[in-house]
Amino acid sequence: MVNTEALEKFYKTVEQNQDDYVERLREAVAIPSISSDVERRDDVVRMSHWLTSLFEKLGIKYEARDVGSHIMDNVELKLPPIILGTYGNDPNKKTILVYGHYDVQPALLEDGWSSKPFDMNETPKGQLIGRGASDDKGPIIGWLNAIEAHQNAEIEFPVNLKICFEGMEENGSEGLDELIFKEADKYFKDVDAVCISDNYWLGVTKPCLTYGLRGICAYKVAISGPGKDLHSGVFGGTVHEPMTDLFHLFSKLVTPQGKILITGVNDDVAPLDDAELQIYKSLEFSMSEFHSAIQSKTNIHESEIEILQYRWRYPSLSIHGIEGAFSSSGFKTVLPARVIGKFSIRIVPNMDPKRVNELVAKYLNDEFAKLGSKNTLNVECLHSAKAWIANPNHWNYVAASNAVERVFKCKPDLTREGGSIPVTLTFQDALKKNVLLLPMGRGDDFLTKLVFWDRDKGEDMTEVVEKPFYDVNLGCGY
Amino acid sequence: MVNTEALEKFYKTVEQNQDDYVERLREAVAIPSISSDVERRDDVVRMSHWLTSLFEKLGIKYEARDVGSHIMDNVELKLPPIILGTYGNDPNKKTILVYGHYDVQPALLEDGWSSKPFDMNETPKGQLIGRGASDDKGPIIGWLNAIEAHQNAEIEFPVNLKICFEGMEENGSEGLDELIFKEADKYFKDVDAVCISDNYWLGVTKPCLTYGLRGICAYKVAISGPGKDLHSGVFGGTVHEPMTDLFHLFSKLVTPQGKILITGVNDDVAPLDDAELQIYKSLEFSMSEFHSAIQSKTNIHESEIEILQYRWRYPSLSIHGIEGAFSSSGFKTVLPARVIGKFSIRIVPNMDPKRVNELVAKYLNDEFAKLGSKNTLNVECLHSAKAWIANPNHWNYVAASNAVERVFKCKPDLTREGGSIPVTLTFQDALKKNVLLLPMGRGDDFLTKLVFWDRDKGEDMTEVVEKPFYDVNLGCGY
Ligand SMILES: [Zn+2]
Ligand SMILES: [Zn+2]
Ligand SMILES: [Zn+2]
Ligand SMILES: [Zn+2]
Repeated sequence: MVNTEALEKFYKTVEQNQDDYVERLREAVAIPSISSDVERRDDVVRMSHWLTSLFEKLGIKYEARDVGSHIMDNVELKLPPIILGTYGNDPNKKTILVYGHYDVQPALLEDGWSSKPFDMNETPKGQLIGRGASDDKGPIIGWLNAIEAHQNAEIEFPVNLKICFEGMEENGSEGLDELIFKEADKYFKDVDAVCISDNYWLGVTKPCLTYGLRGICAYKVAISGPGKDLHSGVFGGTVHEPMTDLFHLFSKLVTPQGKILITGVNDDVAPLDDAELQIYKSLEFSMSEFHSAIQSKTNIHESEIEILQYRWRYPSLSIHGIEGAFSSSGFKTVLPARVIGKFSIRIVPNMDPKRVNELVAKYLNDEFAKLGSKNTLNVECLHSAKAWIANPNHWNYVAASNAVERVFKCKPDLTREGGSIPVTLTFQDALKKNVLLLPMGRGDDFLTKLVFWDRDKGEDMTEVVEKPFYDVNLGCGY
Repeated sequence: MVNTEALEKFYKTVEQNQDDYVERLREAVAIPSISSDVERRDDVVRMSHWLTSLFEKLGIKYEARDVGSHIMDNVELKLPPIILGTYGNDPNKKTILVYGHYDVQPALLEDGWSSKPFDMNETPKGQLIGRGASDDKGPIIGWLNAIEAHQNAEIEFPVNLKICFEGMEENGSEGLDELIFKEADKYFKDVDAVCISDNYWLGVTKPCLTYGLRGICAYKVAISGPGKDLHSGVFGGTVHEPMTDLFHLFSKLVTPQGKILITGVNDDVAPLDDAELQIYKSLEFSMSEFHSAIQSKTNIHESEIEILQYRWRYPSLSIHGIEGAFSSSGFKTVLPARVIGKFSIRIVPNMDPKRVNELVAKYLNDEFAKLGSKNTLNVECLHSAKAWIANPNHWNYVAASNAVERVFKCKPDLTREGGSIPVTLTFQDALKKNVLLLPMGRGDDFLTKLVFWDRDKGEDMTEVVEKPFYDVNLGCGY
């Protein structure tokens, strides 16, 4: 039920407080809460205190849950707390669980930042650049700003909120899954739907709502031959070489056109229906954006719709590398004794990771047998996660769509993503409620010079927040 | 012409002086003349002084040739001198050019040595273990011991000697080739034949003479796609992946049974004639030795003769690794933007490296075109060296064979090797004289616990000298 008058007051308050929100974000960015750095663990905890102070100021009830300790770089470290919060408990309102994370990935000026990463910079265009600005400090503070704006405007907050902010997302989310499953019918028992702001828009002008993610099955394939590395001059031509076998075997995985060759793997892919096809047709996405993103013109498909479909709703297989072979620059005439090829399959609805694992193992063993090699094959699935898909017609999506439309004067894109955000699946499996991904980061972040490519993590990091958009993602259309 | 009485005196003197020879070798081993270590360059130079002192003592005329400087690890370093020596100039005697090297590879106790590598250890069995003992300080000092023994026994040295001892063999032999070509008709102009002691016996009881080496053509094959590494979740399925292309392409190089598939490459291989076949039949080599050497039973061929033929006289192709892909332990779902596959072909008589390069480039480009990928291929030949083969019936070989037979009471094996010893080819090309490889290291060094596998260099290092054999390789049968 939209109260137009209340909303206008809300928007006005948000408008008036922009500078405060920016200063607040600047404070948060300045805390280098890097969860993968032993030396920065205290800063992660400091960041949790910074947040809970704000919770107190805003009257949000909270518990900072201790989830034990872990070993990192041979040091035992206490895990940062998972902050659970409750704001409002009106039985006549819906209860939305909001998830986000207050830790960040490492960042050094030398990595390619245009300004010091923990010293937030505002560009003439109003972009706020700093580590964590969009992933994920900006989005989580956005919710807190929205609460504050409602309070300042003296209007009622339209929903009850349950909050779950963790400090280990960039480092494996240790302790989170257990907590979510444990609290599913306790702390989270009244939750009606979930909202996560930790991904990105598809384009540059239109926000989006994300309703699907691909899953993954990751494999290590070891081929063992001689007991030690050999010199190729002395032994080349006389022994079955694990590298030769691996190249033959992996050449059977996928075509250069991306078609997976593993028998049966494509059989369960959900068919594309008309309703889904309509979604693709309205998306804001262009080939030139795609070419900018990949910094080349080596696209397999010629239409934008196919590109998005093959990214989001069809499986893909990528070979990542080989462990145990020569990998440095230069040249070494070694004949590696044991090599481990690594590849992964991005899986989609309705593929079952277990069945994929069986098909992969059978196929690789069959193909290896055909090689007639005396070497030994070992196939191991390292981890797997099923794909996630939500109903984009659920009221959770409708509310978010309406809110976006009021603020941005356009309907949001309905998108999926090719990668996985594991917590999404956890919330859906534990709570059995609709989960909505409501991204705040603009899609062009990784299309502009502001890209930060974090080689260690292998993840595109975008850390730019457009100031005018910064805290209006919660039009609270619920 | 063999003077039996003189020979007996020589053998007796050698016998009586064994302990002195061992102490002399111990002194040489104690100088860590590691040519690839900036910190050890002074020791390499010190080793050259140690040798020239011995030259002076023995009345060998010499020149320590300055061959300039080079850059190593960003430091400009003077190259160690190449020692040229002349012993005797009787126009009625043959002149033999003896080559060896006084530098060594790095060695640390942690690398797997049974005792401190620069502190020579004598085992109860009379084996002398130390870095450089057999590669190549033992062999070069052997020649000097032989000169000394002739002097002590007061018998005439049977040949004139030209000596060429370098200090950069383990680090690319910088400056050597130029010097050999420059001196071919100057310092080396009277040379009748060349003798190099820098390889190993085939077996454990019979010495061998080596008359052939495979050559090599080494390739870097770069496949470039996106402008930067991509996340496989976001981009998998939408772009042509350089890794996929590389696996398809390299699967076309060689079968798991070692058959090279590159069109035309096998055409020029010298046919196996009966005389050559006879050589293989008399060799001391067993499958169990081979299995010990490779520490597995992954041999392609089932007979000893085939194993040696495929090691020595047939080409082979080995894939060494990939630069630019994920190579660490663990897992990274990266989609590498540019990968460089590395392989090499061991070439044999009568293959021409130039023609092989052309065939490889054409074949890879043709096969890549078939893949239908938008990625870019670049094939580069890093270096190539033709195979070397000498006439094993030349008087140089006959003399060595007779000398070995007198000392060891058995005819030496006639062997070839699968790897390359570049200086062999240089001497043959520059001097146009017969070159003989007369190895001193026992073949079982890398079949026993005394193996030292130097991972950094990718080379089997055997550093054991059997004391009783240590300096009799120069029976001087010439
Ligand atoms: Zn995030
Ligand atoms: Zn992140
Ligand atoms: Zn050597
Ligand atoms: Zn060596």
